[in-house]
Amino acid sequence: MRIAIVLFDRFTALDAVGPYETLGRLPDSETVFVAERTGPVRTDTGNLALTADRTLADVPDPDIVVVPGGPGQTAQMENATLLEWLRAADATSTWTTSVCTGSLLLAAAGLLAGRRATSHWLALGLLEGYGVEATGRRVVTDGKYVTAAGVSSGIDMGLTLLGRIAGDDHARAVQLMTEYDPQPPYDAGSPDKAPAHLVEALRDGSRFTPA
Amino acid sequence: MRIAIVLFDRFTALDAVGPYETLGRLPDSETVFVAERTGPVRTDTGNLALTADRTLADVPDPDIVVVPGGPGQTAQMENATLLEWLRAADATSTWTTSVCTGSLLLAAAGLLAGRRATSHWLALGLLEGYGVEATGRRVVTDGKYVTAAGVSSGIDMGLTLLGRIAGDDHARAVQLMTEYDPQPPYDAGSPDKAPAHLVEALRDGSRFTPA
Repeated sequence: MRIAIVLFDRFTALDAVGPYETLGRLPDSETVFVAERTGPVRTDTGNLALTADRTLADVPDPDIVVVPGGPGQTAQMENATLLEWLRAADATSTWTTSVCTGSLLLAAAGLLAGRRATSHWLALGLLEGYGVEATGRRVVTDGKYVTAAGVSSGIDMGLTLLGRIAGDDHARAVQLMTEYDPQPPYDAGSPDKAPAHLVEALRDGSRFTPA
Repeated sequence: MRIAIVLFDRFTALDAVGPYETLGRLPDSETVFVAERTGPVRTDTGNLALTADRTLADVPDPDIVVVPGGPGQTAQMENATLLEWLRAADATSTWTTSVCTGSLLLAAAGLLAGRRATSHWLALGLLEGYGVEATGRRVVTDGKYVTAAGVSSGIDMGLTLLGRIAGDDHARAVQLMTEYDPQPPYDAGSPDKAPAHLVEALRDGSRFTPA
C-alpha cells in the first residue's frame, strides 16, 4: 500500500508525524510525503521544515491519503490544485484520513458531506458548515473516511487504522515500540477537562472565532 | 530561551517532534533544529526528512538541549564531534534532555554517570552500562537532566518541562491546543502491559540484544 501524507505551508508537524510514526509502520507499505512542490515545507511555528519528496502530481492514486491540519489550512481552502488532487486521490483510495483541521480540507473538497467526522475542538463548528455531522470524538470512522481530532490525536488514529488493516497484534507491537503509554502530567487535553478560563482564552484567541 | 533539538541520520521523527510541539511552545523562546551539517536529515524509515537549520557549531550554548533517539543513535556513540558538542552545550545549559535512546548519547558523553535516567524500554540495560541508575519511568528528572522513555514519551517530557519553566497553566493550554487527551485503541504501550509474546518478539529482534 502507498500512504501519501500531504504537506502545505504552516501545517502542524505532529498532525503529520503522528500517523507517519504509527500507520507508516504498515507492513509492505511505502509512506511518501507530498506537496505541490518538492523540498522543505515549513510548519506553523516557522522553526521546522519537513521535506516533501514528491509532488502531488507524482502521486495521483495513493491507497491511503493523510491530510494534516494547522494554521496554514485556512489558506488551502481555496487552493484548487490541492482540492482537485484530494478529489481525484479519494476516487481510488482505500482510506481517506485527516488529523485536526485537515478534515476541513476534506470537507472543502466535498468529500465529507452527510458523513460523521471530527476535527480540532475549536473547528467543529466550521466543519458543520460543510454539511458534516461533527462529533467531538477523538477518532471517527465513517466508511473509508477516518478523521481525528486535534494534533496529537493522529497517533490514536494511526494506531486505529493500522489495527484495522494489519491486525490488532501488529498495531500493539507498534504501540509497544513507540512506547505509547501516555502519562500526561496534566488532565487538560480536551475542552471538557481543561480549566474553563483556558478554554475561553483559546476560544477568544482562535482564528475560528467568527469575525 | 534557546532550545536546540539535535538531529542525526536515522533518528526517530516523533522523538524530536514530540518535544518540539510542546516544549517548543515556551514563551519567549526560539527552537532550532541542529545537526553536523545543515539541510535535510533522514529519519529511521527513510521516508521522511527534517531540516536542520543550523549546524552544531552555529549553536554552541543553547539553554535547553533535546536529544532524540532512534536506530541511528548507535552510529553516533563514537561521533566525537557530537559528543564534544553535547559536553560543551551541557556545560552552560539550563536543561539537558533526551527522548528514547537519546539518553544513551548523553551517557556516552559522560553526562549521566551516577544519575537516575530513563530510555526506551529495550535500552535500559545498555544505559546501566554507563553507570546510570536506569528506571523504567516515563519521564525522569534528576537535577537539570530530564530523560524520557521511548518515542512518544517526549510529548509527556515536553509538557512536564514546559510546566516547570512556564507554569502549569501554560502547559495545560498547550495540552489543550494540541488536544493531548490520549485514547489509544490498545493498552500495549509498555512491556508491563503488552502481550508477552509481543514483548519477547521485539526483544528477540532488537538491536540491543547482546551479540
